[in-house]
Amino acid sequence: MSSGDSKTIASRRKAEVKRLLNQLGQKIYEDLENEMFPEVTLASRSVSNIVYDEQLKQYVLGPAKTRRSAHNIKHIRSFTQLIWLASFVNRLVETSKTSTLRDVFYSSQAYGVEFNDQSESDEIITDLEVLLSKAREDFNVYPEERSAIFGDLTIEYTVPGYEGRRLNLASHPDGYLIGPSLSTAEFVDTSAEMVIAVEKGGLFTRFVEENVHKRYKALIVDTAGQPPRSTRYMLKRLNAELKLPVYILADGDVYGEHIAMVIVSGSVGAAHLRDLTVPDAKWIGVWGTDIVKYRLPSDPLSEVDVKRIYELKKDPRYAKGIWQRELDVFLKIKRKSELEAFAKYGLTTIVDKYLPEKLQEAKSL
Amino acid sequence: MSSGDSKTIASRRKAEVKRLLNQLGQKIYEDLENEMFPEVTLASRSVSNIVYDEQLKQYVLGPAKTRRSAHNIKHIRSFTQLIWLASFVNRLVETSKTSTLRDVFYSSQAYGVEFNDQSESDEIITDLEVLLSKAREDFNVYPEERSAIFGDLTIEYTVPGYEGRRLNLASHPDGYLIGPSLSTAEFVDTSAEMVIAVEKGGLFTRFVEENVHKRYKALIVDTAGQPPRSTRYMLKRLNAELKLPVYILADGDVYGEHIAMVIVSGSVGAAHLRDLTVPDAKWIGVWGTDIVKYRLPSDPLSEVDVKRIYELKKDPRYAKGIWQRELDVFLKIKRKSELEAFAKYGLTTIVDKYLPEKLQEAKSL
Repeated sequence: MSSGDSKTIASRRKAEVKRLLNQLGQKIYEDLENEMFPEVTLASRSVSNIVYDEQLKQYVLGPAKTRRSAHNIKHIRSFTQLIWLASFVNRLVETSKTSTLRDVFYSSQAYGVEFNDQSESDEIITDLEVLLSKAREDFNVYPEERSAIFGDLTIEYTVPGYEGRRLNLASHPDGYLIGPSLSTAEFVDTSAEMVIAVEKGGLFTRFVEENVHKRYKALIVDTAGQPPRSTRYMLKRLNAELKLPVYILADGDVYGEHIAMVIVSGSVGAAHLRDLTVPDAKWIGVWGTDIVKYRLPSDPLSEVDVKRIYELKKDPRYAKGIWQRELDVFLKIKRKSELEAFAKYGLTTIVDKYLPEKLQEAKSL
Repeated sequence: MSSGDSKTIASRRKAEVKRLLNQLGQKIYEDLENEMFPEVTLASRSVSNIVYDEQLKQYVLGPAKTRRSAHNIKHIRSFTQLIWLASFVNRLVETSKTSTLRDVFYSSQAYGVEFNDQSESDEIITDLEVLLSKAREDFNVYPEERSAIFGDLTIEYTVPGYEGRRLNLASHPDGYLIGPSLSTAEFVDTSAEMVIAVEKGGLFTRFVEENVHKRYKALIVDTAGQPPRSTRYMLKRLNAELKLPVYILADGDVYGEHIAMVIVSGSVGAAHLRDLTVPDAKWIGVWGTDIVKYRLPSDPLSEVDVKRIYELKKDPRYAKGIWQRELDVFLKIKRKSELEAFAKYGLTTIVDKYLPEKLQEAKSL
């Protein structure tokens, strides 16, 4: 994985995506040469085809397929959009440029390919993900949202103009944005022994100021709320490549619990993708139990909160262990708390007392 | 401004804030020693006392004053909150720790000081800003939002643990978060000749990929929408300390125009503060005129958009020049466009064609 290794992870990803896009193009040409209407077949994303996989511990697409054929007048629009998108991202990958979801929507107009709005182009991007079994980031399409990372991890860039350059992620105490360059960088060296993912920028800064990276030999990741995919992919890589355990701290409410679950097992909307989950990541707080135990300032649950808890209680991923137990605790105490609530006991209490106690507790999870 | 200079900007800011806080404490003690009820007097923030200053080219507070006295039963709550806050931030500054707005709200509970909700504590934080004529960032209270910067600028940190360490802001192509450390860093060296502030992360990444920092010798700042104060303060510093002109690119609508105006002349809510405006920053686009000239994909204005335009037309800051002219153009063409709309003409058109044309045009603004 060092710079001497000619096959970096990024270059392997790129080669694989190019191979798949090429295969797709080849298939279309062959159909035409055989005087057939070109068509593609992809896994269906209808709700009835999204099933929970106990083994993978995430939602996956079932066996149902969808066919898109140039022969069918109803398919021509989406078929054309899909093939245009494949050629567009093929050039992105070729030229090592990135694009946003929004850019894709507008770029189509240069080719006379019509999308009514961005939600339509986003849909086709997801179709291409399904068709290639690759995340859009693999073909250089990124969303706008960004999150951040900090700690002793030396990376080596693979993006044009920066190939081979190295950077230590503890060198800027405000944190490093997790964008296209960091997502595709190689991991060279780290002294870290764990990753702590926190939901909020304020707490991220607190952790840096209180030297959590040194005291707990940790890399700190700010998920900035529900983590964007590039962040989940980064957490996955830190866990898989560096064998670092991942601990998650989010607000003490049903949304915080769900942020943790999405890191652990992915989202329903990404049922067609792998490599975005960290099945052995641990949600260490803030639990409903902690609200009581640490006597945290709290707010009453709203009707929407309660409704959401009942929804998640029916989700198979929440059927067991602390996931189900804490949903019940939230319902019972009818209260929720934020990470910042620990400030009641002093700004550093969350680092000095709560974090070590929860990391200790996590060993038995 | 080099590391050899013992009086850094950050240390001068800190000394000044400590002096002001001390003065406030002194005043309270003196009142008590003189057997008077302690009180403070601060400029009124009522709407009638917010006036536009033609000279400063920003909104300022007028001559009306508000008195807060421990003698008045109605004042006791807010007076106590204010004095507690002063002592709280005094310790923050003393120990070089930062806090978020939310942390302040929860921290009060450790002292039995009551705030009904965060909006009440935010109000008191603003009161302290008014009283000291200092932004909350000066007394180490930061909001959550973050924006980013990229380009050839070498900085030197002043935060604990990093004092004297230097970093070049072109070394991470995803950009550097503008948090407490960067806000308080010294500027050591730059080859940049201008600053380009863009409204969106996607465009920021595009600019980095297309080497705008080299081709235009520019520092690129992502304001992430309406720029948080730390970003406006950073733009101010780049302009004042490094004498760099600032150019602003935002979406082609009334909100984009207002983002530019807030960078130029501040916000009404910060009428009590200085050092957050860049009066000679130039809004270079996307203008309504550009939507027509570049035949950009566009959307119809909503009723809310139109209402907002009429509001701004009455604002004295929009009375002249392109500010008024472009509001009229938006009204006339009844359309708005986004920065990403240029992707219709290819992903790099905004960099290769639009940006140089607008920078040229800016010379005559």
